[in-house]
Amino acid sequence: MAQFNKIAIIGVGLIGGSIGLAIKKSGCAREVIGVFHREVTLKKALKCKAVDSGVMNVADGVRAADLIIIAAPVHLIPALAARAMKNAKPGAIITDAGSTKEWIVNKIEKTPGKPANVYFVGSHPMAGSEHAGVRFAREDLFEESPCIVTRTPRTDPGALAQISRFWRSLGGRIKVMSPREHDRTVSLISHLPHVVAFSLAGAVPVKEMACAAEGFRDTTRVASSDPELWADIFLTNRKAVSDAGALFGRQYYKLLKAIATGNRLLTVSILRHSKSKRDKLLPRHPTS
Amino acid sequence: MAQFNKIAIIGVGLIGGSIGLAIKKSGCAREVIGVFHREVTLKKALKCKAVDSGVMNVADGVRAADLIIIAAPVHLIPALAARAMKNAKPGAIITDAGSTKEWIVNKIEKTPGKPANVYFVGSHPMAGSEHAGVRFAREDLFEESPCIVTRTPRTDPGALAQISRFWRSLGGRIKVMSPREHDRTVSLISHLPHVVAFSLAGAVPVKEMACAAEGFRDTTRVASSDPELWADIFLTNRKAVSDAGALFGRQYYKLLKAIATGNRLLTVSILRHSKSKRDKLLPRHPTS
Repeated sequence: MAQFNKIAIIGVGLIGGSIGLAIKKSGCAREVIGVFHREVTLKKALKCKAVDSGVMNVADGVRAADLIIIAAPVHLIPALAARAMKNAKPGAIITDAGSTKEWIVNKIEKTPGKPANVYFVGSHPMAGSEHAGVRFAREDLFEESPCIVTRTPRTDPGALAQISRFWRSLGGRIKVMSPREHDRTVSLISHLPHVVAFSLAGAVPVKEMACAAEGFRDTTRVASSDPELWADIFLTNRKAVSDAGALFGRQYYKLLKAIATGNRLLTVSILRHSKSKRDKLLPRHPTS
Repeated sequence: MAQFNKIAIIGVGLIGGSIGLAIKKSGCAREVIGVFHREVTLKKALKCKAVDSGVMNVADGVRAADLIIIAAPVHLIPALAARAMKNAKPGAIITDAGSTKEWIVNKIEKTPGKPANVYFVGSHPMAGSEHAGVRFAREDLFEESPCIVTRTPRTDPGALAQISRFWRSLGGRIKVMSPREHDRTVSLISHLPHVVAFSLAGAVPVKEMACAAEGFRDTTRVASSDPELWADIFLTNRKAVSDAGALFGRQYYKLLKAIATGNRLLTVSILRHSKSKRDKLLPRHPTS
């Protein structure tokens, strides 16, 4: 049985579009409506069947929805949530798919005139790619992906359970944590790798890149991600990104120093420690 | 027509095994003999048909070979080359597949008693993976991969041409450069990404890694590489790795500072520059 009658997705790009496709596949909603910023995206989303219908403004899109998902760039989420709340029906649940949580959840929970009977729960489905746009949407994007759902003193337990169940039906592996804990965790496993990849692609001269093999390619893959989007992610998580950045810096210079001083014993021991940790990462699809 | 009658491969792991399979596929030699360190590897290599036959010592393996390829860990290559030279037939060409070149080529060119009618040309086929062992060998490993071949004042032009032709028949895209130029280039596009990936895997606590998604996975993939092997690569290319390391460090802290100070304009401009460079990397298989 469908968990929701109608779900509205605000922002139908790679993430929003994949949510739409995954909802269809899971059957957890009877109807999916998209809220679009541009007509051309609406047409593309209808064509690839990411949504059943689409509108160009938030008020029309959310009015009849039981669940409203905001899959827009981080810095737009609080304002879109405010508009969604104003027009949502009583009992509706709002969530988002933003990559930082404390800044977003704080702003939304403190929205002036927030109705008591519309619930907000922060989410971060940890999937995506360096590509942007609904044409890269995939119905299996969230399968076996970690999905962090946030809990604060103001979070409604029923809404939290519904949101967890929703992401689970899309294939996500749910972790519940506070927005601050989320931001610290993703600063290490997502934001830091992006800072590192962007820096590596920025540091290596174009001329040398002609000889690049798979190692360079993989290590810098996420440096092809959208600059505006990632600037806002980094900037809404400044403190945690700075801390994670300092942590990496210490490890990096420890290894560089061991190499520069020709200390083989120390070099091998650092590399062994890193490898043993990396080897613990299970393959995403163990059978493939 | 086969370019060589008999090729000897000293060291039949991922690289040596893939060379054997690729030779078979290309038909550039009539016979491939492997020189092994351990009996168990010999059995595996015969089973996956990476070589036609195998022996357990260099002298027996190289005696009748027209081409001798040393695909062993970097620090063993000069000694293996010395032993190969002593037993090679007149006119034989020796090459290697080591990831650093100045240290190796210098040592080999200065080998005491180096016969004048046995030629050495340094090679570095830039392919591989974080896996080790002949069971991961692939006949297409070198297809469309960059392959650097080194030239020094002592390099025989005929041998250089033969070696270039050989790697080309295995699918490699040949670049000829001096050992020093090679070391500088790969310090940037291969050694630096490994230092960065090892440091990232080393810095992030295991607890947080449970939430890691594809970004972290790709950025740290090469941190699963063999520690001893990579320690020796780094240590035989200390100067260039240190220089490349400093270059990355400057770029990294420039970005971190832009984030920490909330400078959106600068952050976006740094990310844009990195993305534009990364986007220039052509996909390895343009059709896939």
